[in-house]
Amino acid sequence: MRTYKLTIAYDGTRYQGWQRQANTDRTIQGILERVISEQAGYPVEIDGSGRTDAGVHASGQTASVVLSGITSESFFTEEINRILPEDIRILEADLVKSGFHARKSAVGKVYEYRIDTGTKPDVFQRRYCFHFPHELDLDIMRRAAEKLKGTHEFAGYTDKKDEKSTKRTIYDIIVSGQGSSVTIRYEGTGFLYHMVRILTGTLLEAGLHQRTVESVAEVLLTKDRRQAGFLAPARGLFLREVHYDQRGR
Amino acid sequence: MRTYKLTIAYDGTRYQGWQRQANTDRTIQGILERVISEQAGYPVEIDGSGRTDAGVHASGQTASVVLSGITSESFFTEEINRILPEDIRILEADLVKSGFHARKSAVGKVYEYRIDTGTKPDVFQRRYCFHFPHELDLDIMRRAAEKLKGTHEFAGYTDKKDEKSTKRTIYDIIVSGQGSSVTIRYEGTGFLYHMVRILTGTLLEAGLHQRTVESVAEVLLTKDRRQAGFLAPARGLFLREVHYDQRGR
Repeated sequence: MRTYKLTIAYDGTRYQGWQRQANTDRTIQGILERVISEQAGYPVEIDGSGRTDAGVHASGQTASVVLSGITSESFFTEEINRILPEDIRILEADLVKSGFHARKSAVGKVYEYRIDTGTKPDVFQRRYCFHFPHELDLDIMRRAAEKLKGTHEFAGYTDKKDEKSTKRTIYDIIVSGQGSSVTIRYEGTGFLYHMVRILTGTLLEAGLHQRTVESVAEVLLTKDRRQAGFLAPARGLFLREVHYDQRGR
Repeated sequence: MRTYKLTIAYDGTRYQGWQRQANTDRTIQGILERVISEQAGYPVEIDGSGRTDAGVHASGQTASVVLSGITSESFFTEEINRILPEDIRILEADLVKSGFHARKSAVGKVYEYRIDTGTKPDVFQRRYCFHFPHELDLDIMRRAAEKLKGTHEFAGYTDKKDEKSTKRTIYDIIVSGQGSSVTIRYEGTGFLYHMVRILTGTLLEAGLHQRTVESVAEVLLTKDRRQAGFLAPARGLFLREVHYDQRGR
């Protein structure tokens, strides 16, 4: 038995998200499991570092998989890649210690949200950013982002009501702009359902001067979703990196 | 009667090319004419600066259109853009002198061809570049490109046999590389059917040391298509700019 850690990129546009669903071949996990099982010759399950929603992209999603029999890393990066649709690619496959689990072993994640503030949507970037043709005050957005850093209860910044724990730690939020392109990078221990997209909608409202910097901090205390900002659309969101400790566990 | 010059961007992936065809709504010209006619209330024809093939993109195609009645530039950039599919956008609409014709008035064009030489195709760039995972000798490509500059008979570098004239002038070919991305920019008076894609295939063969610099010049003399290189795929090609003289004619 060998355990592999896969690093995967996908264009989420056509998909109903990461998590396998019955009756559809439109999930990333479902397609990966089908193709790997067919090539391995027996049923294989893979575990992602977490779900991504319908339409969300990944340039560095990770997954773990246990295979029996002789298998090499090139089984994934060559044989499986040749069969996958062209909007899903296994970038790396690494043999790791038994017991590695892409979700349970993860210690941090990096997401990036991309916004196109140009007057007209860029036809070549339209699938990979949120077209939001407004002038944004990046300084205000950065000041609001400072309020979110650290360990907090993020119950007001999720759309799921029954999380066991809503405590998360955000290490950093970096707001950068170049021309009509604005990117918000989030680094943290983990993120709740819709959390990055709600944080983004909230920061955008601050950037439009539609809400104060203080109101962003208040949602952490009131835990009231209705006081947070709008849900930014999936197409602008990328799962960039999943971090593990030095032993790769 | 007012004549407008339109500047248009499109993602060519879904389309059968620029030129209208009967029995399909999968051409850029066909869709633009249908939408503009519906909104104008009478049949409108638009003239492009030239055809682009199926799958070829444009970030600066131009077209001319004559409308009667009261019309403003925002008719195109707002009203029409709202109705167009999101992979076609009118970037600019300029009122020009009567008699302006996007093709007949053009004095030059700029095309760009993008190549991804990375081992694995980038899932986010895959629609907008040719994945060619090979090491390229850019210096040899630049030396070969020098042979193509100037005024020549390009009969060996087209797939159409019955052109009235195959004489064209190439002002410049710029080969640039950054990481695994290679871009070839072509500036000239105009280009024959498939010409930019065949020139690109030929330069790539030179970059692989599969043909000599001299062989690239020889095709100009022998005019033999079979001695030229392969037809590079449409997805890497962009019509970037169409040039007119200072009077906009």
